[in-house]
Amino acid sequence: MKRLFELDEWKVQTNLLDKKDRRLQESLMSIGNGYMGMRGNFEEHYSGDHHQGSYLAGVWYPDKTRVGWWKNGYPEYFGKVINSMNFIKLNLYIDGEQVDLYKDSISEFNMSLDMQKGILSRSYIVKKMDKQIHVEVERFVSLAQKELCAIRMKVTSLTGDATIRFVPTLDSNVTNEDSNYEEKFWLPVSATEDSLTVETKPNNFGIEQYTVAATMLNRVENVEHTQTSLSDMSVVQEFTGQLKAGESATIEKLITLTTSRDSSKAEVSYRSKEISEAVAPFSFAQLRQEHMDLWQDRWDKADVIIGGDSAAQQGIRYNLFQLFATYYGEDDRLNIGPKGFTGEKYGGATYWDTEAYAIPLYLALTDQKVSKNLLNYRHNQLPQAEHNARQQGLKGALYPMVTFTGVECHNEWEITFEEIHRNGSMAYAIYNYTNYTGDESYLLDKGLDVLVGISRFWADRVHYNQDKDQYMMHGVTGPNEYENNVNNNWYTNKMAVWTLEYTLSSLEKSENKKIALNVEVKEIEKWQTIIEKMYFPYDEKRGIFVQHDTFLDKELRPVSELNPTELPLSQNWSWDKILRSPYIKQADVLQGIYFFKEDFTEEEKRRNFDFYEPLTVHESSLSPSIHAILAADLQKTDKAVELYSRTARLDLDNYNNDTQDGLHITSMTGSWLTIVEGFAGMRTANETLSFAPILPDNWTNYEFHINYRGRLLKITVDANGLTLTLIKGAAIEVILYDQLIMLTDEYNGLIKTTKVGTI
Amino acid sequence: MKRLFELDEWKVQTNLLDKKDRRLQESLMSIGNGYMGMRGNFEEHYSGDHHQGSYLAGVWYPDKTRVGWWKNGYPEYFGKVINSMNFIKLNLYIDGEQVDLYKDSISEFNMSLDMQKGILSRSYIVKKMDKQIHVEVERFVSLAQKELCAIRMKVTSLTGDATIRFVPTLDSNVTNEDSNYEEKFWLPVSATEDSLTVETKPNNFGIEQYTVAATMLNRVENVEHTQTSLSDMSVVQEFTGQLKAGESATIEKLITLTTSRDSSKAEVSYRSKEISEAVAPFSFAQLRQEHMDLWQDRWDKADVIIGGDSAAQQGIRYNLFQLFATYYGEDDRLNIGPKGFTGEKYGGATYWDTEAYAIPLYLALTDQKVSKNLLNYRHNQLPQAEHNARQQGLKGALYPMVTFTGVECHNEWEITFEEIHRNGSMAYAIYNYTNYTGDESYLLDKGLDVLVGISRFWADRVHYNQDKDQYMMHGVTGPNEYENNVNNNWYTNKMAVWTLEYTLSSLEKSENKKIALNVEVKEIEKWQTIIEKMYFPYDEKRGIFVQHDTFLDKELRPVSELNPTELPLSQNWSWDKILRSPYIKQADVLQGIYFFKEDFTEEEKRRNFDFYEPLTVHESSLSPSIHAILAADLQKTDKAVELYSRTARLDLDNYNNDTQDGLHITSMTGSWLTIVEGFAGMRTANETLSFAPILPDNWTNYEFHINYRGRLLKITVDANGLTLTLIKGAAIEVILYDQLIMLTDEYNGLIKTTKVGTI
Repeated sequence: MKRLFELDEWKVQTNLLDKKDRRLQESLMSIGNGYMGMRGNFEEHYSGDHHQGSYLAGVWYPDKTRVGWWKNGYPEYFGKVINSMNFIKLNLYIDGEQVDLYKDSISEFNMSLDMQKGILSRSYIVKKMDKQIHVEVERFVSLAQKELCAIRMKVTSLTGDATIRFVPTLDSNVTNEDSNYEEKFWLPVSATEDSLTVETKPNNFGIEQYTVAATMLNRVENVEHTQTSLSDMSVVQEFTGQLKAGESATIEKLITLTTSRDSSKAEVSYRSKEISEAVAPFSFAQLRQEHMDLWQDRWDKADVIIGGDSAAQQGIRYNLFQLFATYYGEDDRLNIGPKGFTGEKYGGATYWDTEAYAIPLYLALTDQKVSKNLLNYRHNQLPQAEHNARQQGLKGALYPMVTFTGVECHNEWEITFEEIHRNGSMAYAIYNYTNYTGDESYLLDKGLDVLVGISRFWADRVHYNQDKDQYMMHGVTGPNEYENNVNNNWYTNKMAVWTLEYTLSSLEKSENKKIALNVEVKEIEKWQTIIEKMYFPYDEKRGIFVQHDTFLDKELRPVSELNPTELPLSQNWSWDKILRSPYIKQADVLQGIYFFKEDFTEEEKRRNFDFYEPLTVHESSLSPSIHAILAADLQKTDKAVELYSRTARLDLDNYNNDTQDGLHITSMTGSWLTIVEGFAGMRTANETLSFAPILPDNWTNYEFHINYRGRLLKITVDANGLTLTLIKGAAIEVILYDQLIMLTDEYNGLIKTTKVGTI
Repeated sequence: MKRLFELDEWKVQTNLLDKKDRRLQESLMSIGNGYMGMRGNFEEHYSGDHHQGSYLAGVWYPDKTRVGWWKNGYPEYFGKVINSMNFIKLNLYIDGEQVDLYKDSISEFNMSLDMQKGILSRSYIVKKMDKQIHVEVERFVSLAQKELCAIRMKVTSLTGDATIRFVPTLDSNVTNEDSNYEEKFWLPVSATEDSLTVETKPNNFGIEQYTVAATMLNRVENVEHTQTSLSDMSVVQEFTGQLKAGESATIEKLITLTTSRDSSKAEVSYRSKEISEAVAPFSFAQLRQEHMDLWQDRWDKADVIIGGDSAAQQGIRYNLFQLFATYYGEDDRLNIGPKGFTGEKYGGATYWDTEAYAIPLYLALTDQKVSKNLLNYRHNQLPQAEHNARQQGLKGALYPMVTFTGVECHNEWEITFEEIHRNGSMAYAIYNYTNYTGDESYLLDKGLDVLVGISRFWADRVHYNQDKDQYMMHGVTGPNEYENNVNNNWYTNKMAVWTLEYTLSSLEKSENKKIALNVEVKEIEKWQTIIEKMYFPYDEKRGIFVQHDTFLDKELRPVSELNPTELPLSQNWSWDKILRSPYIKQADVLQGIYFFKEDFTEEEKRRNFDFYEPLTVHESSLSPSIHAILAADLQKTDKAVELYSRTARLDLDNYNNDTQDGLHITSMTGSWLTIVEGFAGMRTANETLSFAPILPDNWTNYEFHINYRGRLLKITVDANGLTLTLIKGAAIEVILYDQLIMLTDEYNGLIKTTKVGTI
């Protein structure tokens, strides 16, 4: 654990320019607006170790798959998030000498990310050759105008006459940080006095070469334009001025970025200039206000308040801020990348994290269309999912593990070919959306196409075991990636059978789709047989669902008996030892129990939790929250609180010692899920909304908002009890614990514990 | 199947210059002398598609491991066989125009590899600008002087005056053929008028940079030295002369190659010149004769004669020739690379093929020291094997799957971390050597070090299952690489238990080793407990050993029910489908039954053969022979013959459609094993030599030689019966079928079938 920033309810800030942990600072200071974003790099020069990274959503490169031994079915390429041009660059010179934040003498440094406003700001005093200059910088990527990144730099001479030079730059000489690839991905197209257009290099896989154009509009005070130099990969402007003591100079660098994703290649440059001209009439303050207002709108719908624990408060807001900075559902061609705009590790944009972990949050905190766009994304990519299944010689649709386009682009067979449970979460998300919103239109218009594709895949992927007269599924990797190529993973079999059931019951609602999708009686009968005869490993003695066929043959020592120096296993054990061990990376059987909580008795849930959680090392960032929710459900409040702390400040406290590579965007939903589904016990299954709150010991209160079927509700829990407020929308029935109430405006009740947090 | 060359008992020859299949021709025309070798490239220019490749044993490069997701325990580098300098290059010009065998008009082409003599020769007539020139070329790599490659080119003008230019060259501008790496591996050191010295580029893994020097001595008739040009990577000499019609010119290019494996870096060049000077006094004919005599010595000990089937005859000789060209045991730092000197695919020099498939052949056909050197090789690398085990967090010694130095250098976890049965074959080879030769000195001096190391590995790699009170071994890949990460692979468990037993019984013979190796009573007790309590999957209903825990849960359709267009599966099915299928790449349970034939009843052997063979696709070149031997043992003669045909001409008939990449050297033992252990039924277990011959239908007779405990025996089988001849050594007891005879000089008997081949 390493905490670089101060605890503050709305800000992430520090007075420390931490050169040793500069990469970690950069990750944590990332900002984004769903269209683009960047790490918390400095505009000025910094010659020390750091990771310069700006990213444009949906702009990527397919890199040839290179493996030791080719296996049929491998994707041809690995999809790489690529570093875009460095458009924030704004060098500063004092009396002809370049300011270097690594080498120069810097004092009164402050850096602050205001999560409420979506503004990154910095200030410091640099001492250079007996001159002292006060520098203030502000940056935001606009929610109002997605193509706009706005930077304002103000310098004030504190000590006397000084020549100031601002050097705003567009620079495409960038590379990716990656252990395997030390390549450049950009080629020049054109450069003008104030704009630069580049394109991604060609590839052999028929993937678009993306064109990207940036226009910079530099508005200055107390300096004058003195020079512009162009190369095919950069545009450099210079503004120079003289300051007396106490005087200031200012530059506002407004960059508008457009890509061939939104315009024809020929028009990308033009469009960037057009937008630049459109924002030109507005002052920096106006642009800023417009942007902040939209962040405020988001917070009005989504804010979570936690009393008595500022670390928890900051953690949940940070997670919501970074999630919304990555994705807010405006563009159904996009998804939620695991590192968002904060790094380039992992590659690919889309993982099953979206369906399993993110959709519940977006359903509750944003407009319905946001979640719907995430579903549309998968529907649009159904042909590619069918391609993926064909690559494995299978029928139906196999959604990818990692992708940009829907075509699988990850090349480890044990993941790509085997971690097929992901297909189940695609189906589950359709159910989740339909059940939460009450809107069946997506299911009937599009969802059934996806469900039938996935069901056809499952029906072909299982095999019939004549000896046992049962269907089985061999050769899979469950959510616990610390085992590979197992047989009859309970979770995967469960998701397969559930998908078949849900598809069949949904098909009942649309005779048209049955015909359009050519679902014949024979196929339906086959699916029903599989549902009836599917094999699920079960242990009578322990009364538990067995993770997979031979899991119980392992040496079953709990994690608590390991020497703590062996943890995390991923860093201390060989892969061989990990695979053979009973240690679980993230919820596997328990993930299934989480999804289908209502289908299991409390005893079943308890027995499985008590068996599996002690074997779980939670080395996936997606793990603690699911366990925390189940722990809360089973009134294991201490355990729930312990696990909450592992998810809420994962990045802020650098829990996994890898946040320097970028933030764990998709797992950021975990802390919210723990509060809402765990502590507040919110459930929405079977078309009813219910709560069963508890209050953790060290919290005085908590409060959050929920959008549910056209209403905005506020839920407040404190030591005195519970308040449910209907802020917007029609009256609604809500179940509190076991009591049904009709919520009209506000309802006050007691929470079920007297001594909170220790039920 | 594709047969490019004529059937001939001692030659591989053709009159066709096959430009479409040039790479295949090149592979098949490879020659070598254990120290160096090369593909059947032309000395003259050939501008068409081909693969230029010469290789020096033990000269390699460690290439950084590049994988998608790093797994702890991976080796840092992948060991690459690298293409050496092109030292055979000898361009030919006629009237100033370069002869190009691809573009020029060529007639009366003949190319021939004489396996008896170890000589590659060619002749043709080239027509160039109305001139017709007859060209004859001969090449060999000397068995007498391992550093010497000798080439003789004679050109005769058939049509009138012609200016001839020979351009003998040493050229280090070579690259490797490899889909993943398009790199050059050589750096210049020095060049003189007649020599070139280069070294491998630096690496980050502490592996030696090899220095290689070549000196060329060019002896000519009817041409004169006209020019020499040097660059840092090449030396080019020119010899020019005028020929009248009917006149000839000749060049003899004698190249001597030395490496820093045998001299200090400073002396490599000097040593190469020294050897060049040493061979200079000898005529080409003398050098050639010395070389041929040594090949004849080899054949005297090893030749196999097959009557009535010239394809079978050519096949077995070809296999023996290429095996001996790759390895004849002179250097215990070397091993038998899977492609020998015929290509660079796979990488690494040493596989478990050596111990499992090659040692039985070398034991019978060569001096005892050859096999002993193969064992010494592994003993020398014991510290590296201990390193490999530590990399996996395990005790003892883990011999590598692929290596040059003993350190594992292959990077697929399912192979490197899991295909650990290889360790068992290391132990088995020690037993095999000791049992065959009756010489216990290796076992007691060195073998026990290896056995104890391997036993300690097994004892740490198993785990105890409390529920069942048995030891198990999870997470392995058996010899059948069409399944990965299985539990309790019967074969691996068998090899583990057998190793522990053999180690314990061998330790009884040396109290000293027990002390030296610190084997305490407690450890011995642990091993004994594992032997007693090891779990072996067994199916009562079928009466078979089960390949691994859940093998019988698969859909068990025999290969015969597959559509033939689906074969080979490796080229037609996804890896996912292969892994889940019941189809077996090569002997797995049956490999264990092959090793320990004496331990199983005929009924056990038959039931397991009848169950597994029909599920086996034999897509490893190592597969058919083991099955053929067991089939012969079970009197399934038709099956044995069918499988023999798949192994004997694997490369000559390009059975697997990949011989263009190089020959399958290590599987070449298979045809010999099938004849000797299969058709002739030779056994050597329990210190006795026995035979139980059968004669395949389409063969009139067969005959082979065996070195056994100081004797040279000849075994002849024909329709009249069997003749055993003691060519050299003392009288010996031999069991024929069930009858014990004392062989003094010659013994004649009947073979047990009346209608041969159809018992």
